[in-house]
Amino acid sequence: MDKNILLKIAYDGAGFHGWQRQPDKPTVQGHLETVLSRLFKTEILLNGTSRTDAGVHALGQQASFKADVNIPVEKLAQVVNNALCGCEKGSFAISPVRIVEAEEKPPEFHARFDARGKTYIYKIRNTQTIDIFQRNYVYHVAEPLDADAMRQAAKLLAGTHDFKSFEASGSTPRESTVRTIYRLELLQKEDLLELHVTGDGFLYNMVRILAGTLVDVGRGRICPEQMTEILDAKDRQVAGHTAPPFGLYLAKVYYEEGELYG
Amino acid sequence: MDKNILLKIAYDGAGFHGWQRQPDKPTVQGHLETVLSRLFKTEILLNGTSRTDAGVHALGQQASFKADVNIPVEKLAQVVNNALCGCEKGSFAISPVRIVEAEEKPPEFHARFDARGKTYIYKIRNTQTIDIFQRNYVYHVAEPLDADAMRQAAKLLAGTHDFKSFEASGSTPRESTVRTIYRLELLQKEDLLELHVTGDGFLYNMVRILAGTLVDVGRGRICPEQMTEILDAKDRQVAGHTAPPFGLYLAKVYYEEGELYG
Repeated sequence: MDKNILLKIAYDGAGFHGWQRQPDKPTVQGHLETVLSRLFKTEILLNGTSRTDAGVHALGQQASFKADVNIPVEKLAQVVNNALCGCEKGSFAISPVRIVEAEEKPPEFHARFDARGKTYIYKIRNTQTIDIFQRNYVYHVAEPLDADAMRQAAKLLAGTHDFKSFEASGSTPRESTVRTIYRLELLQKEDLLELHVTGDGFLYNMVRILAGTLVDVGRGRICPEQMTEILDAKDRQVAGHTAPPFGLYLAKVYYEEGELYG
Repeated sequence: MDKNILLKIAYDGAGFHGWQRQPDKPTVQGHLETVLSRLFKTEILLNGTSRTDAGVHALGQQASFKADVNIPVEKLAQVVNNALCGCEKGSFAISPVRIVEAEEKPPEFHARFDARGKTYIYKIRNTQTIDIFQRNYVYHVAEPLDADAMRQAAKLLAGTHDFKSFEASGSTPRESTVRTIYRLELLQKEDLLELHVTGDGFLYNMVRILAGTLVDVGRGRICPEQMTEILDAKDRQVAGHTAPPFGLYLAKVYYEEGELYG
């Protein structure tokens, strides 16, 4: 009997061409499907919640698959992690992909369609000197950023708006570009600024354009008050730059609406 | 007129097959020589102090080259860093190789032969949970480590000894395997243990075997008191395991003997 298994997955996106399977490029989905198919001796197809771009990381991507899995679900994460490691004895290499947890869901559950919202974290390192060891994991901004101005702007962006100005130009047209941001908060830990964004859904590149626009506010190139105009314009050209992929982390996927407001 | 230029170089070794030039693999020396040769429009050959292995990092590798450089030496680091970046406008990518500083040396100066000693840092992360984003930058050890026992052992290893037991087996025989460790210190910053090793020279894999042996002491598999026996045995088999390359950083090269004892 097939079970419907939901995996919570963390990955370091630095070495991957994004989540989505591609014929000749290493992707997270492709890698994981290969390992799972070998493990369960049948072709496994994953149904991921979010198609993260090349270089984007995840702390809590979610993906489901259906298979006749005879391993108890509470042992599944460990078994898959051992298979993902795939390292010879004596090697200390750690896999860039890690199953955080696994759970069984009802047959009709769908990892993407049943998602009610997501949290992304965008990490900005604000120091004069570059740290080369962080280059794949944070967006380095050398000019001093005015975090208070960024917070003022963030307040104006939170809520339900048409976010068309924050969608990559040339995106496939959607039924609606109205989205709700439940939380848009800028946390500071010494040199590190972390933007936490929780919303019911995101347009293409939306979090990276939000982050880039707030960085432009922090640099003084855009005033916080301009956020309202930018939203009203419904034009990608008037928002700030698109922040690079490597600062972005898919942090959490919500399947219960109540959790979103928590 | 050719100048003799000494570069201090930091690099993230994760994407490289070590320092030394190889015909068909990306190496730090190969990459830097290509960029410098293009910049100065003549073939540049680098003379590096240390041939770091694949995956090993550097905060302060040193390498010299001779060329008719017409850029003022104080501007050289910036010019080479701009060339290393090689990024198109609008890209935010940071180069894994960075020139920390450049200086002119007398014609007879030799980056390797004139080195009087080096400091390496070995980073160990001692936590139960794996952090996949650190996997290329620290050695993750899940079992709790007894840092006091490791410090006791370190004390017995410092000084002038025959370190044959701490040389990779199968290494090309050397005139002498006696080396002096001026400093062998274990620093603790929360979950991170940093081993700082300063010596007049190092045998092949010596720092990684020292680190692995101290980790085995921290786990209780080897007693601190055994260090004397291990040194006396002059046999690789009796020392601990070789810690993986990705925790290792070449931190500093000394050209003045006085600095070594400082």
